[in-house]
Amino acid sequence: MGIGGNDWVLMKTARAPSNIAVIKYWGKRDEKLILPINSSISVTLDYLFATTTVAVSPSFTSNRLWLNGKEVSMESERYKNCLQQIRSRATDVVDEKTGLVVKKEAWKDLYVHVSSRNNFPTAAGLASSAAGFACLVYALAHLMGAKETYEGEFSAIARLGSGSACRSLYGGFVKWNMGKEDSGSDSIATQIVEKDHWKDLVIIIAVVSSRQKETSSTAGMQTSVKTSPLLHHRAKAIVPKRIEQMEEAILNRDFPAFSKLTCADSNQFHATCLDTSPPIFYMNDTSRRLIGLVEKWNAQEGTPQAAYTFDAGPNAVLFAPNNEVAKSLLQRILYLFPPAADADISKYVIGDQSIMELAGIKTTQDIESLPTPIEWSGFDVPRTKGELGYLICSRPGQGAVVLDESAHLLDGATGFPA
Amino acid sequence: MGIGGNDWVLMKTARAPSNIAVIKYWGKRDEKLILPINSSISVTLDYLFATTTVAVSPSFTSNRLWLNGKEVSMESERYKNCLQQIRSRATDVVDEKTGLVVKKEAWKDLYVHVSSRNNFPTAAGLASSAAGFACLVYALAHLMGAKETYEGEFSAIARLGSGSACRSLYGGFVKWNMGKEDSGSDSIATQIVEKDHWKDLVIIIAVVSSRQKETSSTAGMQTSVKTSPLLHHRAKAIVPKRIEQMEEAILNRDFPAFSKLTCADSNQFHATCLDTSPPIFYMNDTSRRLIGLVEKWNAQEGTPQAAYTFDAGPNAVLFAPNNEVAKSLLQRILYLFPPAADADISKYVIGDQSIMELAGIKTTQDIESLPTPIEWSGFDVPRTKGELGYLICSRPGQGAVVLDESAHLLDGATGFPA
Repeated sequence: MGIGGNDWVLMKTARAPSNIAVIKYWGKRDEKLILPINSSISVTLDYLFATTTVAVSPSFTSNRLWLNGKEVSMESERYKNCLQQIRSRATDVVDEKTGLVVKKEAWKDLYVHVSSRNNFPTAAGLASSAAGFACLVYALAHLMGAKETYEGEFSAIARLGSGSACRSLYGGFVKWNMGKEDSGSDSIATQIVEKDHWKDLVIIIAVVSSRQKETSSTAGMQTSVKTSPLLHHRAKAIVPKRIEQMEEAILNRDFPAFSKLTCADSNQFHATCLDTSPPIFYMNDTSRRLIGLVEKWNAQEGTPQAAYTFDAGPNAVLFAPNNEVAKSLLQRILYLFPPAADADISKYVIGDQSIMELAGIKTTQDIESLPTPIEWSGFDVPRTKGELGYLICSRPGQGAVVLDESAHLLDGATGFPA
Repeated sequence: MGIGGNDWVLMKTARAPSNIAVIKYWGKRDEKLILPINSSISVTLDYLFATTTVAVSPSFTSNRLWLNGKEVSMESERYKNCLQQIRSRATDVVDEKTGLVVKKEAWKDLYVHVSSRNNFPTAAGLASSAAGFACLVYALAHLMGAKETYEGEFSAIARLGSGSACRSLYGGFVKWNMGKEDSGSDSIATQIVEKDHWKDLVIIIAVVSSRQKETSSTAGMQTSVKTSPLLHHRAKAIVPKRIEQMEEAILNRDFPAFSKLTCADSNQFHATCLDTSPPIFYMNDTSRRLIGLVEKWNAQEGTPQAAYTFDAGPNAVLFAPNNEVAKSLLQRILYLFPPAADADISKYVIGDQSIMELAGIKTTQDIESLPTPIEWSGFDVPRTKGELGYLICSRPGQGAVVLDESAHLLDGATGFPA
């Protein structure tokens, strides 16, 4: 180490986005290295982030982690693997501000403190672990001056924390190649196109209110790999072609093809969950009503207006090709799934406000004044208030970035939460 | 024709049971001949019957059909095919009572009147078309003195009315061989074992109250065949082995094997529905809670206590290996799914009353006094009253039979509904 005393703290803060898979990842061929049985494709989400500060100091006496302000153990293999992999790639680091030098060989002896926060409720089941591990790895790499020896190497490290975390390092549209190597070195994420390639795409996340206790995705996919014959057929015989088709749909900004593939692949993923023994149910009757809304609308128009996808939970992630269609989609959702009577509309629809402005909805009462053409007022969904908790309007977003010191979540002097 | 005037009516009445598939039929390889893409296995149900009277008279001026007292058209191909096939196998018939003779060649010129009733609500979605077409074919064959030229030929004719109807001619446990011939002559039902082979088996049908409009099975399976890649894999690569395993489980009265296969195959069928574009949902949140009840109980005991299967609707068909387990299953269902407050218990649990007697439940209040051991009172199902419409207790039942004239549903003198 280049300095003497214990009275210094070095820290970095990064932000990494959540992502939503449109060709799903379900099932590992290696539990420890988190190697998947098929490739997957995701869209990086704007407005849904993890922010993580990582700090080192000779005064720290153990690795410690605070998630949304609450301390949790860092003893799980997943954290330890990520930390160990970044440490082994650390270099000499000079702190520009203080001139402090941490030598390459010193990193292995320094404990880390980590504080991480999501800007969305973790309970909502919106891939918080993907954003979290991507952010941890990205922040650690920047703190320790770690360099990739090949492109995508950091994504392989984030993958050790949570499979889908590898996709959260990049913006826009991202592919996670399943890879072939036993080491997992080629099971990495690569960007298909950056977010501005398809900037008109609008993403609306419908967070379902009542949630039963769910099977974790780690446990769920283990059981599926063991018991679902359909899952193995899907991984081997169906996904490879869908990956090609989805890449093409994205490159061509072909919304009808994107929509058909996205919906079909979401449904097939949930089909393999149902084919699991005992069966796993992530969608509920509200999820099915949201699917019905989209499918009925698409059938009426004769061409896909919107698309839906569901991860390991009941929340819908809906896509519209542009602002105009998104406005219509949002109006339909608000009309058919109105907020609870006492809800504050500004908390019912969060994220990007431009679609709400376009839809001209400023109050809960405005929803009741929406035009309801016969073709959608006739939809046989009961208008149960409060069936959805809230909605998030989003867009394709950017990947992980380093933030300046104003974003630090640990105290600069102590390295502990302030 | 052996007689002169128009003033005679000749009729026969038959009864045929409903059946529930434990290895599912989903998908046709020939729409007109109703040839399936895989073989299936069913249990014939006691207490759930269609009763059908078929009559001929020279005074009739057209083919007419009354279903549950309401006249419906007999012009569909399905009715016409069944009628034509039986007619072409008609023989000289002598009415024992009157000495009336109808010659073989006369049948083709005689119109038929048909009256059919189910002893269970058709709206309940309990395979009423299977029982109905089996009954129609069986009654017509007996009226017209038709003889099978090979064993199972009548089942191939019932199949022309409704695929699963072929399985309703036989009692006990029945296999529908998918067959190979383009003509469908080998796509017939055969009895695996008769009902007394496994007479301890108890079947409890839970009819779910609220039902959304559902996709008909005819339309649903067409869409699945066209759009679900998983369905074709299932039919080709998975079902053949399951058919063998299920036959073995039935022959050995091996309830654990029977249960595992039955549940897995029901779930896989619904998985292929979900893999269909647009997706088809037959189960709802109530169905899932019933699955949860069985799966949790089975997991707690470490070996299957009960099994479940769902056809193209939300109703559960539950199996227990004997009266003792059936009693416990019924208690659990009644406790977790109590009848509406004003319900008459004698109408809430119908069919075989022996399990109710064993359970000692005579009133709705008795349900509240049931012992609720921690391991199932702790089950996280809300006790919503009236979530189920009613329950039917059943057993493996006998196949189609001819009834005496007291059962006639048409007036003996006129051949019209009385």
